[in-house]
Amino acid sequence: MSLLLLGRWLPAERDHWLHLLQSVMPDEQWLLAPPVNPAEAAEVEVAVVANPEPGSLAGLPKLRLIQSLWAGVDRLLQDLTLPPEVPLARMVDPAMNESMAHTALWAVLSLHRGFFELQAQQGRAEWIAPQQPRASEWRVLVLGLGELGGRVAQSLAAQGYAVSGWSRRPALLTGVHTLHGEAGLAEGLAQADTVVNLLPLTEQTRDFFDASRFEAMKPGASLVNLARGAHVLEVELLAALDGGRLSRAVLDVFRQEPLPVDHPFWRHPRITVLPHCAAQTDPRSAAAVVRANVLALRAGQPLQHLVQRHQGY
Amino acid sequence: MSLLLLGRWLPAERDHWLHLLQSVMPDEQWLLAPPVNPAEAAEVEVAVVANPEPGSLAGLPKLRLIQSLWAGVDRLLQDLTLPPEVPLARMVDPAMNESMAHTALWAVLSLHRGFFELQAQQGRAEWIAPQQPRASEWRVLVLGLGELGGRVAQSLAAQGYAVSGWSRRPALLTGVHTLHGEAGLAEGLAQADTVVNLLPLTEQTRDFFDASRFEAMKPGASLVNLARGAHVLEVELLAALDGGRLSRAVLDVFRQEPLPVDHPFWRHPRITVLPHCAAQTDPRSAAAVVRANVLALRAGQPLQHLVQRHQGY
Ligand SMILES: NC(=O)c1ccc[n+]([C@@H]2O[C@H](COP(=O)([O-])OP(=O)(O)OC[C@H]3O[C@@H](n4cnc5c(N)ncnc54)[C@H](OP(=O)(O)O)[C@@H]3O)[C@@H](O)[C@H]2O)c1
Ligand SMILES: NC(=O)c1ccc[n+]([C@@H]2O[C@H](COP(=O)([O-])OP(=O)(O)OC[C@H]3O[C@@H](n4cnc5c(N)ncnc54)[C@H](OP(=O)(O)O)[C@@H]3O)[C@@H](O)[C@H]2O)c1
Repeated sequence: MSLLLLGRWLPAERDHWLHLLQSVMPDEQWLLAPPVNPAEAAEVEVAVVANPEPGSLAGLPKLRLIQSLWAGVDRLLQDLTLPPEVPLARMVDPAMNESMAHTALWAVLSLHRGFFELQAQQGRAEWIAPQQPRASEWRVLVLGLGELGGRVAQSLAAQGYAVSGWSRRPALLTGVHTLHGEAGLAEGLAQADTVVNLLPLTEQTRDFFDASRFEAMKPGASLVNLARGAHVLEVELLAALDGGRLSRAVLDVFRQEPLPVDHPFWRHPRITVLPHCAAQTDPRSAAAVVRANVLALRAGQPLQHLVQRHQGY
Repeated sequence: MSLLLLGRWLPAERDHWLHLLQSVMPDEQWLLAPPVNPAEAAEVEVAVVANPEPGSLAGLPKLRLIQSLWAGVDRLLQDLTLPPEVPLARMVDPAMNESMAHTALWAVLSLHRGFFELQAQQGRAEWIAPQQPRASEWRVLVLGLGELGGRVAQSLAAQGYAVSGWSRRPALLTGVHTLHGEAGLAEGLAQADTVVNLLPLTEQTRDFFDASRFEAMKPGASLVNLARGAHVLEVELLAALDGGRLSRAVLDVFRQEPLPVDHPFWRHPRITVLPHCAAQTDPRSAAAVVRANVLALRAGQPLQHLVQRHQGY
């Protein structure tokens, strides 16, 4: 019985992961792949994966757990050869939640307090103090109230922001005005000064931000996309910015990554481009999360952070 | 008995203040100055001031309270004609504290997570994800643990940062490693990744950041100055940045304000210039603070937020 580590990494990155995983699970036998020979493949019980090549999880007859090292599993689920009956767990890591909360807080503070404009003013040696609305006068709508969105919504509320949150099922979250359904979405979009996207990418949420969604937003509002590039129709976002409907966008994710050098987002004066770094998996804590699920598997206890594959997240 | 409103404002600003003050103290008689004629001057009991011209508080025989609308009183105390025996109160306003905590949080998040570098990378269409240290691995030293510094230190600690704080007298603050004295300062400076200055400007703290202080800092550390421009020797700061000792500075205050257009700070790639907007007095809550002190004065109760004039803050 062995564990297979599968990812698209530079060798140094892969070795770092292997080292950390081995150090918290010293008695396990680890395989590095691809490729694995048939004898090795027959022994693989757990696949620990980070965006593996499609097809690479087929042909593992004893596979009992696929553990993703990344939080989002949209790419993994597009692999049609993924064995359908094997439990798939995703990464849920307190260190990653903290990083996401920090990125969202930085983006909202920057928008609320005008720090992006001040940066442009500095380029012109312009000394103009911005308005200083109170946080309680700045409404943020967080889309998705899962591990990341829920944490982000509460951390913004703790900073005094007026926070709404939207999820698929009705939710309760202290200090957050929770919404669901199309009517809830319409209410949330119409009132928010800043919309923070933390939805998973599913059939239902692909192309979520199109012209009609931008039209439903409060004029002059801003968008912070920390989830997936395919949530946003990029040409329609540009039109909403250039047409004055939206004031600004902070984007960590894009339909094509790395963002191509000739992409208009790089040079747009009201778009902030981040290189998909809102919340990186922290190998130190992630290794412990993997270990916990491997131990649960061995002990016949419930696995954690399982993906509902029919829901797509 | 009347109240005198004295400041260097545009007429619209002054009218806004007067309107708010009158609305919370409808029964008081307000005078706008300068100038006041001797009959009016004889009646003034409270002066509500915002950087008044030096000399303008002399010749008010019945003056019993000088209430500043600004938090810092360093400029006011330089007025040698300031009646020495009249109590001087400064502005302590929860809305201002919140704004300062937000500005400090934004600056520390930007430094810790590399958002300033990412902004420069965007200009070069460069896609490189930065390191992501945990907040607990990022030490912030807050200089001054008063109304603003104390709040800032605790809000950074709540975000998971490793926070030290330095004050004149020994202090206790939950979640903050408190320091005092020269030895405490040396320890704090040597260990901090980011130093946030929230000291008042006094004889003891003028020119605080000179070459020797920069030498005492951890190599590659960053400075966030949210207090007063005269705390920093600007030429020595430039040398510390250009010599590679300091990695970056975020400056809200300057020796000359507005910062002159030809000042090298504007164009320095590792200096962020803010136009003295870290925490502006919010007239809505500030009016209530003034009212509370006027009521206390009338009722013979202790006045709040009195300045220890011999200490300079
Ligand atoms: N940029 C980065 O660095 C980065 C890093 C990590 C993750 N991410 C992205 O963040 C996403 C969210 O992660 P997470 O851990 O918070 O996911 P999660 O725990 O699965 O939460 C997903 C949330 O979205 C809601 N949701 C799903 N489909 C919906 C729909 N059709 N309409 C309304 N709400 C819907 C869910 O509602 P219910 O509560 O009703 O189920 C839930 O609240 C990931 O999928 C990934 O794409 C980005
Ligand atoms: N940039 C802006 O927008 C903005 C806005 C408002 C205020 N400010 C500045 O912020 C400053 C601080 O305001 P505050 O309300 O927090 O002041 P405060 O409540 O009077 O607190 C001052 C703090 O500094 C400490 N301190 C004073 N002298 C010291 C010395 N020589 N060595 C070590 N510590 C010393 C004090 O120590 P003890 O506790 O021992 O007394 C106290 O902790 C103001 O004076 C003003 O200049 C800037």
